[in-house]
Amino acid sequence: MRPYDIIARKARGERLTREEIGAFVKGAVDGSFEDCQLGAMLMAIRINGMDDGETLDLTLEMAHSGRMLDLSSLPGVKADKHSTGGVGDTVTLVAAPLMAACGLTVAKMSGRGLGFTGGTLDKLESIPGMRVDLTAKEFMDTARDTRLVVTGQASDLAPADGVLYAMRDVTATVDAMPLIISSILSKKLAAGCDAVLLDVKTGDGAIMARLEDAVELAKKMVRIGCGAGRRFRAMVTDMSQPLGMYVGNALEVEEAIYMLSGEAEGPLKDVSLEVCAQMLAMGGLAQSREEGLDKARKALENGAGLQKLKDMIRAQGGDDRVAEDPGLLPRAKRLIPICARESGYLSRCRANDIGTAARCLGAGRTHKGEKSDPAVGIVLKKRVGDRVDRGETIAVLHANPASDVDGAMECLKDTFCVSPEAVERQSLFHALITEKDV
Amino acid sequence: MRPYDIIARKARGERLTREEIGAFVKGAVDGSFEDCQLGAMLMAIRINGMDDGETLDLTLEMAHSGRMLDLSSLPGVKADKHSTGGVGDTVTLVAAPLMAACGLTVAKMSGRGLGFTGGTLDKLESIPGMRVDLTAKEFMDTARDTRLVVTGQASDLAPADGVLYAMRDVTATVDAMPLIISSILSKKLAAGCDAVLLDVKTGDGAIMARLEDAVELAKKMVRIGCGAGRRFRAMVTDMSQPLGMYVGNALEVEEAIYMLSGEAEGPLKDVSLEVCAQMLAMGGLAQSREEGLDKARKALENGAGLQKLKDMIRAQGGDDRVAEDPGLLPRAKRLIPICARESGYLSRCRANDIGTAARCLGAGRTHKGEKSDPAVGIVLKKRVGDRVDRGETIAVLHANPASDVDGAMECLKDTFCVSPEAVERQSLFHALITEKDV
Repeated sequence: MRPYDIIARKARGERLTREEIGAFVKGAVDGSFEDCQLGAMLMAIRINGMDDGETLDLTLEMAHSGRMLDLSSLPGVKADKHSTGGVGDTVTLVAAPLMAACGLTVAKMSGRGLGFTGGTLDKLESIPGMRVDLTAKEFMDTARDTRLVVTGQASDLAPADGVLYAMRDVTATVDAMPLIISSILSKKLAAGCDAVLLDVKTGDGAIMARLEDAVELAKKMVRIGCGAGRRFRAMVTDMSQPLGMYVGNALEVEEAIYMLSGEAEGPLKDVSLEVCAQMLAMGGLAQSREEGLDKARKALENGAGLQKLKDMIRAQGGDDRVAEDPGLLPRAKRLIPICARESGYLSRCRANDIGTAARCLGAGRTHKGEKSDPAVGIVLKKRVGDRVDRGETIAVLHANPASDVDGAMECLKDTFCVSPEAVERQSLFHALITEKDV
Repeated sequence: MRPYDIIARKARGERLTREEIGAFVKGAVDGSFEDCQLGAMLMAIRINGMDDGETLDLTLEMAHSGRMLDLSSLPGVKADKHSTGGVGDTVTLVAAPLMAACGLTVAKMSGRGLGFTGGTLDKLESIPGMRVDLTAKEFMDTARDTRLVVTGQASDLAPADGVLYAMRDVTATVDAMPLIISSILSKKLAAGCDAVLLDVKTGDGAIMARLEDAVELAKKMVRIGCGAGRRFRAMVTDMSQPLGMYVGNALEVEEAIYMLSGEAEGPLKDVSLEVCAQMLAMGGLAQSREEGLDKARKALENGAGLQKLKDMIRAQGGDDRVAEDPGLLPRAKRLIPICARESGYLSRCRANDIGTAARCLGAGRTHKGEKSDPAVGIVLKKRVGDRVDRGETIAVLHANPASDVDGAMECLKDTFCVSPEAVERQSLFHALITEKDV
């Protein structure tokens, strides 16, 4: 089976066999496919697509391209959630402690991401002392003791994804559905969890800007995840404006603490409770999503979720006093408010622009290995639909001396729109896909 | 202009600008496009195509990616011919001497090719002493003195083609029309000729097996070649059976000598005369193709063509006595006849199989840099339509000890077919496309 013949078949739009897909994935890891052949193959998949069977085969081959983590020695249902990524998406930091507080085991490996702001790892690292480079033993021990642990993705899990992901990033094949799906799911399968809730974002700050594409992606991922023998559900949620009000690494930890303390309301809390509710239903710890929601709310209101977050921070070497005093988190030196130029209702608050602006300030990274600034970011004071008075603060930039404030301001020049008429609030939940729907 | 954005546009099927195409071609030469990006771009072009304007831009950018040869100091019209390649295609060795004898200047750079048998260079190198690695000065001096010279492609002509051609060969993008066209035409433009006759082969031994594809390729090449400001014509000729009766390096030189000596007839002679006639008409040395054909026939019959071949061989260090005594050419050690198992008419003589069998014997190469055997090959005794008696020889394998004779015989097991009924001869000329047709 020559690389040439496999590429030629996909170039002609034919269906690849499991063996051919296996040779491609193996070739990405062991170099038996040259770089130009990998690029050509990714592009052929990007343009000609793959059906569900091929995508499942690709996912399984990528998952098995390295070590398959065995979590079976941990108690209970091993649950995980995954977001396709967005701006102010702090759900993991709120939902995972609630899930653990309700009896699920969350032993999570997370990536740094090349997004607007850092990934969950970067956020956690903003907590003084916090370690996200646990050894395998520390990871398993913490998961057993606290039911909640988050560490960096082990490099020997799904190594084919590492190679192909880096290549997709430069070959304009990032948005190919079979490649998105296999990348996300192969890591989840290799990481050993039993049940996964996928949060597929839609809107201008999401990988799938159009709702119908997001729903299709969600359906396919549930179908393929279930086809691989694990429990999967997906929800499609809005990312036309940031989910939380805080965008930045330490800022998002701070907001998660407010949420778990019951001091704040909003879409971030709503999505986090829903994620927890769905996971409890999937894990058999609730008879229904409604019962799961009750349990999740209770864990938030009685402080059990916040306690789980503290337990995890302490177990991973971090200063758990931040949970009582977020002032211990890194703080930016300058606060720059953005004020409304007229009165009315906020009608636009573009997630994409706000993410790009936060990156200008230093919250994200453009290149792999680049350092992000834990302190900087943007705090929103208004959401779409809110009443705004002339001169009132819409958002506050948190900047440090190295921040590109001019760049951030340039990004934000058309981001916010104030309309004289009242504006409807955007709906948050667009779709839920369970194992029964596919 | 980032590589990513250019690739993304072609991935979406959009039209690229001259600047974008230029960045891609430059990127292939200077490394500013990574290998995986070149592979992805080639595949995007392979699947989504390029229109004539883009293909012209690609051709021009590739031609200008290195040195542009200046032949203006040579006398007369600088004429060249190019075949898309086939089996027993010895036209250059017959037509080029006739063209030079009729007053055109043929200063040709030729490739080795990765085909069934060697390219024109390999054939010429089978002549004892013959050099095809002329310096620039030797090349120009020989062209001026004899009006006929053939040497290896200079590496600084169209270097982008060298990079992309090698990559197409492993990424299953060999058969993409814009890539075929730009590869052929960029080298012709860089090599400085005024007028080019393209011989596009069709049939099972050709790059374009289907006639309609071959005609489309021919039309596009004439359109784009003329668009680049040179004179181009194309003819589409048959390659369902080998053109000449001799397949192999020295064997093809031998057949060319027979043709130029007037000792043999057949399609090879017909195509060679037609090429010369068309070139004379294009170069203004004949009022019409018919007048060109008269002149070409005369140059063959009066021995002027053979004399030009001898002049060139001598000028390039070769032993020109081969023109009188082809027995001086390298000879294979073993002759193995293939005989008819029944009487009737030869109804099939597959070019592709015969080419592959010749490669098994050692006449071609599979990898770049591999050495081909000048002596080995196959001599056909019959063509499609010929009467064959049981036990009569259809073909003779010329083998050496290193030849894979079993492999060659295996290739040939379904190649020849004898039918009890009389069989029509295959038509040779399918189409002619002149600058007026496009």
